[in-house]
Formats: sequence, C-alpha cells, structure tokens
Amino acid sequence: MPALFSRYRPEIDSLMKKIVCRRESQLYDMIRYHLGWIDENGAPITGDSGKALRPGLCLLACEAVCGDHAKALPAAVAIELVHNYSLIHDDIQDNDSERRHRPTVWRIWGVPQAINAGTAAKVIASMALGEYRELGFTAEKTVEIVMIIEEATLHIIEGQHLDIGFENMNDISAHQYLEMIRNKTGALISAALKAGATAGCGERRTAEKFGELGMMLGIAFQARDDILGIWGSAKATGKPEASDIRRKKKSLPVVHMLSSASKSDRASLDRIYAMEQIDDCAVRTVMTLLESTGARERTEALVDSSSARCFEIIDNLPIDYSYRTELKTITESLSGRDR
Amino acid sequence: MPALFSRYRPEIDSLMKKIVCRRESQLYDMIRYHLGWIDENGAPITGDSGKALRPGLCLLACEAVCGDHAKALPAAVAIELVHNYSLIHDDIQDNDSERRHRPTVWRIWGVPQAINAGTAAKVIASMALGEYRELGFTAEKTVEIVMIIEEATLHIIEGQHLDIGFENMNDISAHQYLEMIRNKTGALISAALKAGATAGCGERRTAEKFGELGMMLGIAFQARDDILGIWGSAKATGKPEASDIRRKKKSLPVVHMLSSASKSDRASLDRIYAMEQIDDCAVRTVMTLLESTGARERTEALVDSSSARCFEIIDNLPIDYSYRTELKTITESLSGRDR
Repeated sequence: MPALFSRYRPEIDSLMKKIVCRRESQLYDMIRYHLGWIDENGAPITGDSGKALRPGLCLLACEAVCGDHAKALPAAVAIELVHNYSLIHDDIQDNDSERRHRPTVWRIWGVPQAINAGTAAKVIASMALGEYRELGFTAEKTVEIVMIIEEATLHIIEGQHLDIGFENMNDISAHQYLEMIRNKTGALISAALKAGATAGCGERRTAEKFGELGMMLGIAFQARDDILGIWGSAKATGKPEASDIRRKKKSLPVVHMLSSASKSDRASLDRIYAMEQIDDCAVRTVMTLLESTGARERTEALVDSSSARCFEIIDNLPIDYSYRTELKTITESLSGRDR
Repeated sequence: MPALFSRYRPEIDSLMKKIVCRRESQLYDMIRYHLGWIDENGAPITGDSGKALRPGLCLLACEAVCGDHAKALPAAVAIELVHNYSLIHDDIQDNDSERRHRPTVWRIWGVPQAINAGTAAKVIASMALGEYRELGFTAEKTVEIVMIIEEATLHIIEGQHLDIGFENMNDISAHQYLEMIRNKTGALISAALKAGATAGCGERRTAEKFGELGMMLGIAFQARDDILGIWGSAKATGKPEASDIRRKKKSLPVVHMLSSASKSDRASLDRIYAMEQIDDCAVRTVMTLLESTGARERTEALVDSSSARCFEIIDNLPIDYSYRTELKTITESLSGRDR
C-alpha cells in the first residue's frame, strides 16, 4: 500500500481517539472494540483498524489543493467513522460473524446493542465536524462539508438497501449492480476526496472533479474486491477460496454470468443457487461457467476502464505533479491489489 | 391535547413530506409507512402519525422568543425525524410487532431493511437542516442548531443502551433509571425547546432555560407513561391491562418496588420475573406489591415534582404571558394524561 496510508495515520488515529473516547460507557467500548483498539473486555490491544483509505484520500486531496492536510482532519475522521458505522450495521444485516479475524460487534453484544453502536458511530461522525469551530473554520464552510458527508451517508444506506434487495432477486442487470456499488462504495470515497478539497478551500469545480475521481476509484475498488472474493488467494485475503460463491453473493462476475449463461447453464445455476449450501462440486461448476461466459473478463474490463478514467481525471486536476503521481499510484494499487 | 398540536400540524407535515419524499425508493417508503402516510403497498392512507409533541414544542419556543414560529420549522422537522428514527430502531431492539395499531417496519420488511429505514430517517433529519440555507439563516446559527440535535441524538442512543442493559440486571436503582430516561426521553424534548429558542435567536441563557424545561417535561412525561403502562385503562391506551408488567418492563414503579420489597416479597418477585410468561395470577401479585411498597405513590411524586419544577421555570422565562399559559397547559396535559 502507498506511503499515504502510513504518513497520515498517527494524526487520524489521534483525533479519532479524542472524539470516540469523549465518554466512558460500554456503548463507546463497542465502537472502540470494532476499531481494533480494545478487546471485548476493554483491555487495550493493537488490532487491525483497517486501511484508513478514505481518511487518507481526504487529507491528500486537501493537501493537494492548499498544501496543508490538517484542515481536513475533522472531515477525514468523520468519514472514517461513517465508514465504520456502516460496517457495524452491515455485519448485522449480512449475519457476518467475523471481521478482520475477530468476532463482529453483534456476535459479542447482541443485535440490539450493535445497532446502537453503529448509529452512535454515525452520530459521533456528525459531531466530529464540531471540531471545525476550534480550527477557526467559517460556519459556512463547515455546513458545506457536513452536507457532503450526510449526503454520502444517505447514498451508502441506499446502496445497502439495494444490495439486501438483490438477495431475493434472480435477475439483476449489470446496470442495477453498478447503481448499487456507486451508492454503497463509490459515494463515500467520492465524498472523502470532495470534502478534503472543500476543506482545503479548493474551487468548487476542483472539488467536483475530486468527487468524480473518488466515484471512479470506488467502482474500480469494488469491482476488484468482487474479483478477489472469487479468485483471490485464501492466503492473501484471509477468506476461504471462492468465498463469495459459497456465500451466494451476487457480485458483479456472478451478475454477468447469470445474464449471459445459455438456457441449460442458467437452469443448472438456478439449481445451484437454490441449494441450502453450495458444495465443492457446485463451486467448481460455477467457477467454470464464470470463465466460459466471460464474466471474469468483463469485470476486469470495468476495473481497467474505471482506472483509465481515474488517470484522465487526475491529469486534469490543477495540482502539483507530485500529488498527481501519488494519486496515480493509489489508483494502481487499489485496482491491482491482491487483498 | 392542547391546541398547539393541531395549530402547527399542517406546516410540520408539509415540510416533513417535502423532505422525506425527495427520492423515490422503497427505502423511503418504509419511513413513510412508519409515519402513517402510506400502507405497506404504497397506497396513501390517513394513519396515526403520533402526537408531534416535539416539533410542536420546538415551534412554540421559537414563536415565544421572536413571534415567528417559521424560523424553527427545519429544526422541528429534524427533531420529529430523529424521534421516528429512534422508534423504528426501538421496535427492532425490543422485538415489538405493533406500533400505533399497525405492524412495525421490521415485521413487514425484516430487520436488515428496518435498520436501513431507521438510520436513513436519522440522516434525513441531519439533512433537513440544509433547509436553513433557504431560510436565509447564517451558517453559524445553523451549526449551532445542528449540534444541539446531534448531541440529543447521541443521548437517546445512550439511554437506549442503558435501557437494553437493564433487561439483564436485577437491581436497578431509581438513580440509574432516572439517568436512563433523562437520556432516552428527556434529551430530545429538551433539544426541541432549546433548538426552537435558538432558531428564534433567543439569548443563549433563555435557550438553556428552555432546554431545562424540556428535560423536566420529559421526565414528567416518561414517569406518567410508566404509570399508564401499568395502571392505564386498556380502552384509553390501546394496550392490554398491566401491559408493562406482562412485558417484564423495568419501568420506574417496578424499580421502586424491587428496591423496597421485603426479603420474602423480593424472593417471590424474583420467581415471577424468572417466569417465561407472567400469568394473570402473578400479575395480581405484582400489582398488590406495587401498591403496598408505595411504588405507585413514589412514581406519582416524581411526576408532581417535575411538573412543579416546570411551572417554576416557565414563570421565569422572559416570554409573554400567553405563551407561559400555553406552556403550563401543556405541562398539565402531559403529566395528567390518561393515554
């Protein structure tokens, strides 16, 4: 992963801690547990807190337009908290027992309290913007940033709503799928870059371009994620082989496969997806059909076209050469990553 | 109920509709269903949308300090949406199948989508404050109001977190119980009055006094609710007789009873509360003990002392006589209501 993600890390973590540890209560302990700061008994640990991709991008955009990343710190932290709120709720909604190799919040504290933990993280995110008073920001600018982040949060929920709906649908078009990931994944990465540029007082047109870059980056990121969910090596991803097939996840390759399978292949796929549990033999059948229908190539083509569009946007951003290079490195790293 | 709740109603409903109906999707349909605007198939109905107590108080506080309630409309609507977000999540967390005589959102669309509906209502609430741009408010004032409402939302979650924790606790002190309702019920009613006064550009000290009034009103309201949950007439409340006893709810009278029962009475209460389902005979035992331990009187005393404090605060508010009278009528109506 590019240097970006370690360079800003201490400052992100420090403000995150200040904001999340404001009150003492098990409610906040659940959030701190989810963030990998403490174990379930409250003892400090050095756990995996995730990549901090979104806050990193937010700070980079800010620095690129004004030379000072610190102006975007409250926005970056708010965005990381929104991301984590959505993970806490996603784990409940998807009935997932593990995240980052640890039991999920609902597995330990139950669904009712995990709902509280997620929503509290969301509200703390909104309150993080209160930090802008201390940074001497105008209220005008603060409201602008608040609205970018709230809007993105609503998009995340719309995306999650579509995604859950897909579970009971047999025919999802690639168009519908794209609509879902634009909301669920693209919107917040887009907001991270846009809010960063806005906090750095970039021109509105520049902030919009950063937002567009974030959306394309989000699509490339998610499509790559979908590829890893099927063809990723178990060793690198930490998930079982063909994990998304076993979980019956309707990711983009599966959507492509279902829409272009022959009538008889489609019939056997429908039989497989109606099984209680997909066994190894069925997994092999699906994997073969994914290759023969060209589903993998089409998903890879989306990663490639989205990355290419990212490069185009980056080349037209009014920022220094070094920032352009860094944004390109990030694009390559996200669209080519193996975990 | 006082005239207040019908006087402002059309304006509240109209802005609510504008804000909630911005997008077309089943996600928003769930919120509109919960609000009693449509049935589960999307057909318009005239359902029970609740009392709209909080937005009414918000507008009244604004009008009392500046003569124009309209300045508080976005805040009032945001607060009503926060209240409804919390109800949607509460119904999931408490496993309640009915609200206002209709199936709850999770009963129809399932828990995962109901979580989305609740959180979306919360985010729309935050975005409602965007309306302040159109009302010509300064961003400064907007941020101030946003922070009042976000802070109250966090308190609601803290209160709900405590309340859920109580289910597994045998000994809850009246102090702990009060802490819970201050957060779960008091904070938002307090925020409604405080945000209203703030939107009306009342002095900060006045806004704080309104906030204090809201907290006392919230406590009186909830303690009264606890009395109705046990001694309310089924006809007036629409709930079964002694409903909170049958649901094993640890409301204030129960907390008082458990803390002051004799050793042998406490042993039989522990046996009753360990039953899978509380039968009619056990309900009668509990009802007798509630009377003999003075639990009812002590709860009524809290309603009375909180209302008395409300009157005191109202008398010291720098507002016209007519508004003071109206606030007193509301206090009496909330603390004396029978449904």
